[in-house]
Amino acid sequence: MKTFEYIEGGVTAARGFRASGVAAGIKYKDRKDVALVAADAPAAVAAVYTTNKVAAAPVQVDRERTGSGQAQAVIVNSGCANACTGEQGLLNACEMARAAANALGIDERLVLVCSTGVIGVHLPMERVAAGAELAARALSREGGDDAAHAIMTTDTVDKQVAVELEIDGKTVCIGGMCKGSGMIEPNMATMLGFLTTDAAIHAEALDQALREAVDVSFNRLVVDGDRSTNDTVILMASGVADNNVLTPYHPQWQYFVDALTTVCLELGKKMVMDGEGATKFVKVRVMGARTDADAQLAARAISKSALVKTSWFGIDPNWGRVIAAVGYSGAEVDDRHAQIYYGDVCAYDQGRVADAPLLKAMRDLMLKRAFDVTVNLNVGSGEDTIYTCDLSLDYVKINAEYTT
Amino acid sequence: MKTFEYIEGGVTAARGFRASGVAAGIKYKDRKDVALVAADAPAAVAAVYTTNKVAAAPVQVDRERTGSGQAQAVIVNSGCANACTGEQGLLNACEMARAAANALGIDERLVLVCSTGVIGVHLPMERVAAGAELAARALSREGGDDAAHAIMTTDTVDKQVAVELEIDGKTVCIGGMCKGSGMIEPNMATMLGFLTTDAAIHAEALDQALREAVDVSFNRLVVDGDRSTNDTVILMASGVADNNVLTPYHPQWQYFVDALTTVCLELGKKMVMDGEGATKFVKVRVMGARTDADAQLAARAISKSALVKTSWFGIDPNWGRVIAAVGYSGAEVDDRHAQIYYGDVCAYDQGRVADAPLLKAMRDLMLKRAFDVTVNLNVGSGEDTIYTCDLSLDYVKINAEYTT
Repeated sequence: MKTFEYIEGGVTAARGFRASGVAAGIKYKDRKDVALVAADAPAAVAAVYTTNKVAAAPVQVDRERTGSGQAQAVIVNSGCANACTGEQGLLNACEMARAAANALGIDERLVLVCSTGVIGVHLPMERVAAGAELAARALSREGGDDAAHAIMTTDTVDKQVAVELEIDGKTVCIGGMCKGSGMIEPNMATMLGFLTTDAAIHAEALDQALREAVDVSFNRLVVDGDRSTNDTVILMASGVADNNVLTPYHPQWQYFVDALTTVCLELGKKMVMDGEGATKFVKVRVMGARTDADAQLAARAISKSALVKTSWFGIDPNWGRVIAAVGYSGAEVDDRHAQIYYGDVCAYDQGRVADAPLLKAMRDLMLKRAFDVTVNLNVGSGEDTIYTCDLSLDYVKINAEYTT
Repeated sequence: MKTFEYIEGGVTAARGFRASGVAAGIKYKDRKDVALVAADAPAAVAAVYTTNKVAAAPVQVDRERTGSGQAQAVIVNSGCANACTGEQGLLNACEMARAAANALGIDERLVLVCSTGVIGVHLPMERVAAGAELAARALSREGGDDAAHAIMTTDTVDKQVAVELEIDGKTVCIGGMCKGSGMIEPNMATMLGFLTTDAAIHAEALDQALREAVDVSFNRLVVDGDRSTNDTVILMASGVADNNVLTPYHPQWQYFVDALTTVCLELGKKMVMDGEGATKFVKVRVMGARTDADAQLAARAISKSALVKTSWFGIDPNWGRVIAAVGYSGAEVDDRHAQIYYGDVCAYDQGRVADAPLLKAMRDLMLKRAFDVTVNLNVGSGEDTIYTCDLSLDYVKINAEYTT
């Protein structure tokens, strides 16, 4: 099977979409903070939302609207999450969508809305309305980059990925952008992700593809274990590529899902790499678990452990903290059978402990920006992988200072 | 009902016990690292252990021995956890107990053993044996203080509490010491606790009293959410006080359990106060939950949230992070009904948000060393309380540098 190719761009790499990012003064002056992504015509849409029971107003609005399977635009603001804002917040989210719809001259029910930023503050609606106007006028095929910048909060870099693949002899593109660097865990985090494709695909199949992709990408990220009130991933398909309509019965279905998964995973990795204060990017693999579910429990416990994360920051192959985390994860484990690796170096082998030269080799490995930690429980064939980062002094500084 | 009185001392406050703490060079030179607590005669014993599936060798030994309901001494070392040390570790734990038994001239099956420190390192048995000898010779009625120092690892202060109460007209004492400042969560953490009482009570009732006390004290502490391989709480009763034997049918049973709970809770608070790098001691109360279990879920999620903990460190009444944590805790919550208080000041009231003067009042409160955060979910009558601390720069420093 052919593989796909990475190409330049993000949310406007796929044909049929334009985007923009403008400065509307939502929280700061002269900083891009309103993004707009618009399809040339109504597109198929699928979305995945936060599992947090305290869902922000825009999430409540979008949940209802994406039920129709159709959307044409998404307007996004940074600087204010519009969460815990009561009835007024809901009205404001609808008003924000309406402002974009009016500026675009389309039905407001085709406009989705996302917010990210501080909780418990009302949107400055005059600025939002002005921003929507400005953003609609600025829409362009090259606007993906501006949009990717406008959705950033504590992110230090913009995050965009696009791939090209061939389906039914037609060139299909999948691209996207996301923001998020803290609050990333079990089921995504403010984490906003916007994906577009020019593939021809109906909403139901699009939903299935998105869920499959998100499960092994965005849902496998851990930064700090907090989960946001605003998490949203939206995928729109314009159908301009003119392939035979994709369904799970299409011979190239899995190819499409794999490409979508790759886009999500690469965006996800960029978020973890840009995790607040992160100095290390760590791929935590657990194998030999009783079940896949057990492997996931163990991998998440390791990835969330403050003690493990600080040991990574300290360039310390402290495998004792790793096995302790597995021990309280709920996964079946017997330390007499377990093995722990840093990269290819075995730190702990069923009761035997690495000697000084091996510890040195592990420390050398940990000096790199990215490394793997692998645990083999040797009790079954369950596997899982989580992408995570360390817990650094800067994480604490950033989050002690980022204020209400 | 009479209340009890706090008195000086710790593990030797109760009659019938002697203790000591000596420097045996386990990890560092000239630092007390072996403690011994010994009853004058075989005592009733009860114990609670880590729920971590990776249990250290001493925990495995003690689990078996405390099943008999009788013990006469506990030997403890700091500097080495004797965890993940395989068969050799088990042999070493037994040998350590045997060394103490020989020095005391008692049956080795009456000696319990505890270790705390680095995982995956074997005990230096010659030094342990010499330490046991030394500690046995140093035993005294005033030795509680030395013992409390010898069990410390990253603790910055020793932790001792003792109370006196009257049962059947007799003076009964309950005292104890503990160590622990990191790795403290759901079900205790290396966290070692040693309690003694001169009350007359059989092992079965002692076990019931200890479990009741631990459930609302040590099991309600959160420092970093990690749970240790070595957690142990041991309670010995000498019976010297000569009260009528305590059982759940004794008219003063609850009085005794309450006093024991107080000792555990005060020791627990000392651990949280001394939490690694902690600058704030926070009592997190959740009320109005659907059930007590829901309240506990919510309180634990708040207490474990890195974002909430860093906001406390930053003197920032960031209630948005608090409600977000409740939202993903699994507890039933509707932000339109919830209320969040810092001390007595309402930060969030069912959709209404505190204004600037109230935020100022909350910041002033948070400048204190200790404060309460209270969440009323207003959906039921479930309640729970967790004692926790902030996440500071020093926490990261300590744990990045404390090395294998």
